[in-house]
Amino acid sequence: MMSSRDGFQWTPETGLVQGVPSIGVISPSTNVTTNQSWDVIVVGGGYSGLTSLRDATVAGLRVLLVEARDRIGGRSWSSNIEGYPFEMGGTWVHMFQPHVWREISRYQMRNELESSFDFSHGVNHFQLRSSQGESIMSHDEEDALLAGALAKFVNVDGQLGRKIMPLSHDTFHIPEARKYDNMSAQDRLDEISLSLTPNERVALESFILLCSCGTLQTTSFLEFLHWWALCGYTYQGCLDCLITYKFKGGQSSFAIKFFKEALSTGRLSYVFNSPVSSIHDNGKKVTLTTRDGRQYSAPRLISTVPLNVLNTIKFEPPLDPQRVAAMNIGHVNQCVKVHAEISSKGMRSWTGISYPFNKLAYAIGDGTTPQGNTHVVCFGGNFNHIQPEEDVAATKKAVDNLSPGNMDIKRLVFHNWSRDEFAKGAWFFSPPQLLSTSLEALRARHGNVLFANSDWAVGWRSFIDGAIEEGTRAAMTVKEELGPRTTFRSNL
Amino acid sequence: MMSSRDGFQWTPETGLVQGVPSIGVISPSTNVTTNQSWDVIVVGGGYSGLTSLRDATVAGLRVLLVEARDRIGGRSWSSNIEGYPFEMGGTWVHMFQPHVWREISRYQMRNELESSFDFSHGVNHFQLRSSQGESIMSHDEEDALLAGALAKFVNVDGQLGRKIMPLSHDTFHIPEARKYDNMSAQDRLDEISLSLTPNERVALESFILLCSCGTLQTTSFLEFLHWWALCGYTYQGCLDCLITYKFKGGQSSFAIKFFKEALSTGRLSYVFNSPVSSIHDNGKKVTLTTRDGRQYSAPRLISTVPLNVLNTIKFEPPLDPQRVAAMNIGHVNQCVKVHAEISSKGMRSWTGISYPFNKLAYAIGDGTTPQGNTHVVCFGGNFNHIQPEEDVAATKKAVDNLSPGNMDIKRLVFHNWSRDEFAKGAWFFSPPQLLSTSLEALRARHGNVLFANSDWAVGWRSFIDGAIEEGTRAAMTVKEELGPRTTFRSNL
Repeated sequence: MMSSRDGFQWTPETGLVQGVPSIGVISPSTNVTTNQSWDVIVVGGGYSGLTSLRDATVAGLRVLLVEARDRIGGRSWSSNIEGYPFEMGGTWVHMFQPHVWREISRYQMRNELESSFDFSHGVNHFQLRSSQGESIMSHDEEDALLAGALAKFVNVDGQLGRKIMPLSHDTFHIPEARKYDNMSAQDRLDEISLSLTPNERVALESFILLCSCGTLQTTSFLEFLHWWALCGYTYQGCLDCLITYKFKGGQSSFAIKFFKEALSTGRLSYVFNSPVSSIHDNGKKVTLTTRDGRQYSAPRLISTVPLNVLNTIKFEPPLDPQRVAAMNIGHVNQCVKVHAEISSKGMRSWTGISYPFNKLAYAIGDGTTPQGNTHVVCFGGNFNHIQPEEDVAATKKAVDNLSPGNMDIKRLVFHNWSRDEFAKGAWFFSPPQLLSTSLEALRARHGNVLFANSDWAVGWRSFIDGAIEEGTRAAMTVKEELGPRTTFRSNL
Repeated sequence: MMSSRDGFQWTPETGLVQGVPSIGVISPSTNVTTNQSWDVIVVGGGYSGLTSLRDATVAGLRVLLVEARDRIGGRSWSSNIEGYPFEMGGTWVHMFQPHVWREISRYQMRNELESSFDFSHGVNHFQLRSSQGESIMSHDEEDALLAGALAKFVNVDGQLGRKIMPLSHDTFHIPEARKYDNMSAQDRLDEISLSLTPNERVALESFILLCSCGTLQTTSFLEFLHWWALCGYTYQGCLDCLITYKFKGGQSSFAIKFFKEALSTGRLSYVFNSPVSSIHDNGKKVTLTTRDGRQYSAPRLISTVPLNVLNTIKFEPPLDPQRVAAMNIGHVNQCVKVHAEISSKGMRSWTGISYPFNKLAYAIGDGTTPQGNTHVVCFGGNFNHIQPEEDVAATKKAVDNLSPGNMDIKRLVFHNWSRDEFAKGAWFFSPPQLLSTSLEALRARHGNVLFANSDWAVGWRSFIDGAIEEGTRAAMTVKEELGPRTTFRSNL
């Protein structure tokens, strides 16, 4: 298996090593020959790009993928290390996520899913550590604690958010919802603080920060309500949709299906390792220039570049001011996701919160490795940020602090999304006032350039589902505009 | 607008008239010319067929649709009468139904949905009429009544069905679930009867029968648990997913999108008004013969014929015994769905149950017509069956009995699915022991013949979503087997 430049691994034997193996690495890195032409250029090979290039090539269009990395998947990819997939980014899926589920169903991968949780053996408890002390609870007690706290947090309308956001795919369906985009999570906490127990407060804050990975001040309360609506307005729904079902073979085992289907049409060209410097639309065709000076042109271009990276590319004609303003604000998610392989078998059924003192606030037992070790996944964020590769001892300490004495660390695996120049953060999470001012601008086209990214999806925004929603939208538009392909030809 | 032969309308002025207008009627009824050949024949133009022919033609395959009716949509179609769409069959959709939602999203029809319920004005109550008396309740009380009764009904595992059916797309994931397919709804009611109030019992039975439209004895308890799991294990989820969101323009406004997209490829041929008598697979090609003796051949055939109709077609070689057994048992849903346009504006916010004495057991205010009348939709089934066109006075009486004195009927609209020779019932609902013995057999291929129908979907079986799931599956298989289309040609 090829290794990506992305990601880090640490073991006592090897120390810190940059780059981890992944089935998402594509080699050789290009199949482009001379004298080719394309109907559409897709910039970025995450799920938005993969979906749009798959749909477009199947429908007869000739597509060039231009990807900065050496791999597909964007912010969702898995590293296969000694037979075990570690999820470096976006991980979990659910049947209530329509776009991703349609693909799982279509690729007959429904039975390739498994639950992250296994409470059948081991410690089988929830460990809540705060500045005020430590509690050990059953998972039922954990659920009751969080369900109760969340109900207080979201219940702005006496109907647990159903009234203010009845349609989860239409954030602003009720115009009054806009006012909650002027509030941060901190603002909402201030409103309900007298009704929260200390344990509720700690659990609630760390759950909110698990979603946004920003700070409480930079987390839009509206966007949290949107997540809540997407999950069916219950904590159980949040658990089910956000953090339960993952691919046995890792996300890259799913992403590669899109890529291979597109390749099988004979109409997909690709160049990896090709960061983009500029995109120029002369009204008839769009010309992309890579940092190393190569140029590619096509009648349409689909940019799947994430919000936080868009302002590194020069657009001609210039982008509209509202989009530029949103790009320069950016989203706030600086998730630190660290996988730890530990020797304790019993920790498989452990979940924990250590907040606010610890650099990693939330963690769960996520799997058992082929070696029989427990795999624990730990989350931190901007509220107490670390660069995990910078000081591995500090990172290990943050893992250990989640359950002192129980973290005999055999391996760490992570991707530093904050320092990733092609992501500049993890999944989208909105600060206050970004969505209500800029969502429509972010979704708009710019001449012959279309923008497709989960960051501005209408449904499961921030999720793999939203990426597929967006890739589907862009491909459909291009297909309609370039006309039905009644006769096709292969490009390869 | 063209009229279909299907459906009935009654008004005081016209009396009973067979056939109602629909945008789903296709005219002229064929575009086939001589000397054409196809890659795949699709039998049936409901959502399974529409999805498979859309996916196949977009991917470069040449498809012939053979449809018995004069319209697309199968068991889901809408009649547009004086500017208002009456849903003759399958109606409601939800974002938690992944396959249908992906299509709604892809066709940018998210904003074409509206809620059936409008409790903003009028009587705003629930009227529960049983043999023991009548109760008028608020809708909150209605919800509490049904939620409480359903919780008792489904709670076989102390977790409201979550433990016995954790994956809604995999009915038998927990092998122990099979035992509930040996139970009827009546069997389960017998187990919990001492814990139900009389009102709970009436509401619960009529809700179960609204789902199955069979009898309590012929309703598989397992399949009811499956519906419950699909809806997220809550009554609110059932309301949201089963009976809330519908297309402003009617189902046919959605179905026509699939058909038109396929047509735009230049690779769709179709013949309507063409019931099939036999399907013969000689191992190299499949030859279909219509009742009037026309023959069509192709390397593959996708049959979307419903379970209850499959045994009217002669297959050569013969179908396997397990499938034949299931076909001969059939599903039990004999839904009687009657739309009534009534003069009372206040009834817009009414819901009602009249059970078990009445021929129509369950009804809701479903819309307001352009004339300002209230549209009420009423449901009956095999438990107290009528042929609504046979005795219109009796049908009107059944409507009136739902809320005596409040049903000043201006119009009736309905489709008699029981007497429809191409449906022989409404949406699939399983009797005990059908699914556990036959689901896999129904899903299996038969040589070059593939079977795609919501009746044997794995997820939202019985729903439009399941039809799209199945059409997607069949098209994907055919596409893979006939090879990627690297060069295509138009057939028209």
